[in-house]
Amino acid sequence: MANLHDVAHELEKNLRESEEYQGLKEAYEAVMADDASKKMFDNFRETQIQLQQKQMQGEDISEEEVEKARKTVELVQQNEKISKLMEKEQHLNNVINDISRIITKPLEELYAE
Amino acid sequence: MANLHDVAHELEKNLRESEEYQGLKEAYEAVMADDASKKMFDNFRETQIQLQQKQMQGEDISEEEVEKARKTVELVQQNEKISKLMEKEQHLNNVINDISRIITKPLEELYAE
Repeated sequence: MANLHDVAHELEKNLRESEEYQGLKEAYEAVMADDASKKMFDNFRETQIQLQQKQMQGEDISEEEVEKARKTVELVQQNEKISKLMEKEQHLNNVINDISRIITKPLEELYAE
Repeated sequence: MANLHDVAHELEKNLRESEEYQGLKEAYEAVMADDASKKMFDNFRETQIQLQQKQMQGEDISEEEVEKARKTVELVQQNEKISKLMEKEQHLNNVINDISRIITKPLEELYAE
């Protein structure tokens, strides 16, 4: 396992230095540095987490809550700093999904036998 | 991204050569090579997938189905080759979870700021 851990840490270092991560970091810090954007983003995240928790626990989600969530999304999309952050999140997600596909290939191959 | 991909492929190679992956491969091939175990394992996987799909689609799962699933699990646990395979799957899952935690650390740190 020693070797595997070393390579994983090397990958972490590379990810941290990547354009995609640095871009996300900048976008995140820009949101955090702006009071109005930070409040809006925190509110958005909280609404998302609440809905996800309800979904996972199989609770009903009221029309009112759906409407509130829709409005929160609409609001953050109009905020330039937050839309930039969400775009950068998507970029880094793509990178991480790519990496994940590469790493789990041996497993996929095995179970396809 | 070139560098990141290279390191990801190196990690894949290391994972493929790891004791944990080789152990899983052997255990999987032992199940596949034994007709009775293979049939039992295929049946178990099919039952699991069916239940997961129902759960994801929010469909009701009947008591009969729960009972059938319980019996399938009981059956595979008594099969030495399959329990060995499941044990090896768990080992490799631990390794992959470790790697995943290492790689996503920069993200965790960022959002904890």
